[in-house]
Amino acid sequence: MILHPAANEGAAPVLTSAVTDGVCTLTLARPQARNSLSEAMMAALSSALAGIAADKSVRAVVLAAEGPVFSAGHDLKEIQAHRGDADRGRAYFAEVLGRCSALMTAIVRLPQPVIAAVEGMATAAGCQLVASCDLAVAGEKARFCTPGVNIGLFCHTPMVALSRNLGRKHALEMLLLGEWVEAPEAHRMGLVNRVVPEGTALAAAQELARRIAAKSTVPVKLGKEAFYAQMEMGLDDAYAYASRVMTENMLARDADEGISAVLEKRPASWEDR
Amino acid sequence: MILHPAANEGAAPVLTSAVTDGVCTLTLARPQARNSLSEAMMAALSSALAGIAADKSVRAVVLAAEGPVFSAGHDLKEIQAHRGDADRGRAYFAEVLGRCSALMTAIVRLPQPVIAAVEGMATAAGCQLVASCDLAVAGEKARFCTPGVNIGLFCHTPMVALSRNLGRKHALEMLLLGEWVEAPEAHRMGLVNRVVPEGTALAAAQELARRIAAKSTVPVKLGKEAFYAQMEMGLDDAYAYASRVMTENMLARDADEGISAVLEKRPASWEDR
Amino acid sequence: MILHPAANEGAAPVLTSAVTDGVCTLTLARPQARNSLSEAMMAALSSALAGIAADKSVRAVVLAAEGPVFSAGHDLKEIQAHRGDADRGRAYFAEVLGRCSALMTAIVRLPQPVIAAVEGMATAAGCQLVASCDLAVAGEKARFCTPGVNIGLFCHTPMVALSRNLGRKHALEMLLLGEWVEAPEAHRMGLVNRVVPEGTALAAAQELARRIAAKSTVPVKLGKEAFYAQMEMGLDDAYAYASRVMTENMLARDADEGISAVLEKRPASWEDR
Repeated sequence: MILHPAANEGAAPVLTSAVTDGVCTLTLARPQARNSLSEAMMAALSSALAGIAADKSVRAVVLAAEGPVFSAGHDLKEIQAHRGDADRGRAYFAEVLGRCSALMTAIVRLPQPVIAAVEGMATAAGCQLVASCDLAVAGEKARFCTPGVNIGLFCHTPMVALSRNLGRKHALEMLLLGEWVEAPEAHRMGLVNRVVPEGTALAAAQELARRIAAKSTVPVKLGKEAFYAQMEMGLDDAYAYASRVMTENMLARDADEGISAVLEKRPASWEDR
Repeated sequence: MILHPAANEGAAPVLTSAVTDGVCTLTLARPQARNSLSEAMMAALSSALAGIAADKSVRAVVLAAEGPVFSAGHDLKEIQAHRGDADRGRAYFAEVLGRCSALMTAIVRLPQPVIAAVEGMATAAGCQLVASCDLAVAGEKARFCTPGVNIGLFCHTPMVALSRNLGRKHALEMLLLGEWVEAPEAHRMGLVNRVVPEGTALAAAQELARRIAAKSTVPVKLGKEAFYAQMEMGLDDAYAYASRVMTENMLARDADEGISAVLEKRPASWEDR
Repeated sequence: MILHPAANEGAAPVLTSAVTDGVCTLTLARPQARNSLSEAMMAALSSALAGIAADKSVRAVVLAAEGPVFSAGHDLKEIQAHRGDADRGRAYFAEVLGRCSALMTAIVRLPQPVIAAVEGMATAAGCQLVASCDLAVAGEKARFCTPGVNIGLFCHTPMVALSRNLGRKHALEMLLLGEWVEAPEAHRMGLVNRVVPEGTALAAAQELARRIAAKSTVPVKLGKEAFYAQMEMGLDDAYAYASRVMTENMLARDADEGISAVLEKRPASWEDR
């Protein structure tokens, strides 16, 4: 296990990072603050993701958390501290939401797949983190909530991620009622891929990540990028675009190797391994 | 209980309206005509919704119906009566469908959330009403159908609402086969949020509505509007838009109050209560 | 049973076609090659679909397959054979993917509904075939997979169809892991409409097709076309478009007949029957 340097600077890291077998596990490590997405936590996550994006030895990412709360979303104290600004906080609020949205899209745009490993409570922007990951595994006691509506502040930006994962009535139920959704119901709604025994979400997510990390890097990277790109296109444009990307993928060394290996009934060996 | 005036004009109201605790319950009240969306019913619904949109004392809406049929959709006799028009009914048909589509989008655009309470049969534009609501509760004997295909007239406009709530294969199954879908299957498909014992859908929907009505008005209104707006955007535009709306929401008095209340571990008091 | 001529030219047809009661059953008939979408198979399917599109006696289509593999996707030997081309296969790969995408969109654009009847394994472009059909029935031992990621070649074009049928996390799970999804899970995800006892998918799909074929041709044709068209529009445009199409549908002879039949409590008789 190699510690990933980016997230371990400073005295009390809010985020830890460790790479094993091509899988980088990022762990929100501020359980005493319910792993809230404070400025420090968002900066640490954004920095870690930037490092991973440039690190070819990382082929899959797991996003986990220490303690009983996966993440409670924004740090409300930081928000309230800016009520006294000359503009009543407007510039600060816009800045924080811009940074948070950039963080969430950085997960979507990361070349490597990201798998959330959720135990305990994931609320507001913490729930958005789960929705923004490509895949998610939940312990059976995990719970999800977008409770902003209960405190006068609708979960507008979490909604963007949530409504792209769930059916409309499910997303609206979470957003308008702001009530807990237990892991099995989150599974039924499509927010998480797997529900596993309590305490095993991290191991299960890492196992999925290892399987992805064992694959050729090229198709995973091209595929993830193309997935989100073509989702925003009409059918004809999506097919034209996907055909272009797939042609490039076919010309890559690993596609030649992978297909040859199948035809020759032998294991494939990937370029970067 | 205060009767809402808009829907009670005239001798035989096709729609009744009553407001309790900030929840307006609209009830289709023409069971003898299977609560069909006749011209009179559409006009009454549209008028009632316009009144609710302007009525700040209403913070959530329940849409229910009297009798064994929630709504059977358009009034086929009214349609056939225009076959003899000089244009064979073309102008009338276009007018009726335009009014119906305006009614359905009025539900989507209403500032207040709308919850369908469905007992019995919801067919064609009656099924579209359910799909157009933000949330839906169904009694366990409720049944849904888009049967137009069986009478030579595909449910084209109901399709618009249905296909934005269900997966493609589920929506096409309902539309191409025109067969009954029972409440549990409608729940599985995502058309309704909850299935409750027969006869309790209204009470269950009103309970959900009361919970929403107890929340601050500002985030619910901003959130519902933003939900549908951002669904039609790409990811980057959606985040930019949602961040702008959320910044405005943060500056609202109730967000300050709500967040302060959480931090001070006290109940919040909303501006309009 | 009348054999449909288009697919039976040549000595060893890769595709058979038979029409009964307005239902055309197309059967992939090269089980020894796992019904791969070879150039010959794609050409046969495209030709058969073009014939069906112009054949008013066909009112619904079932797509089935002989043998234990529904379809294994592209013919990898054909692909590898072009690695030695002057451009390393680029032009050929682009041509094959273009033809395959045209085939898949021909299913979507076909005036008649297409129902997949899946027994056994449907992988890669074979899985895409199922996703591209309007409806799908699976035998309980059917299995689905987009395994490209395992051989260095992400299933980019299958992704286009898959991601328009499934929730995002479900689609990404299939695409990034490349693992088998059993029929019940495919049903849960919305990839298939029905799971039936092993060996009965063809009969079940034909039964659904017969029910559709018994309906008036006009609304089915207008409805299927409008379904996919309006899915790519915003809400207001979708309603305006669907209202226009429905007005045309109302003016069709069969809508008059169908509605009259309902009001007169008699069976309807369709124009082309």
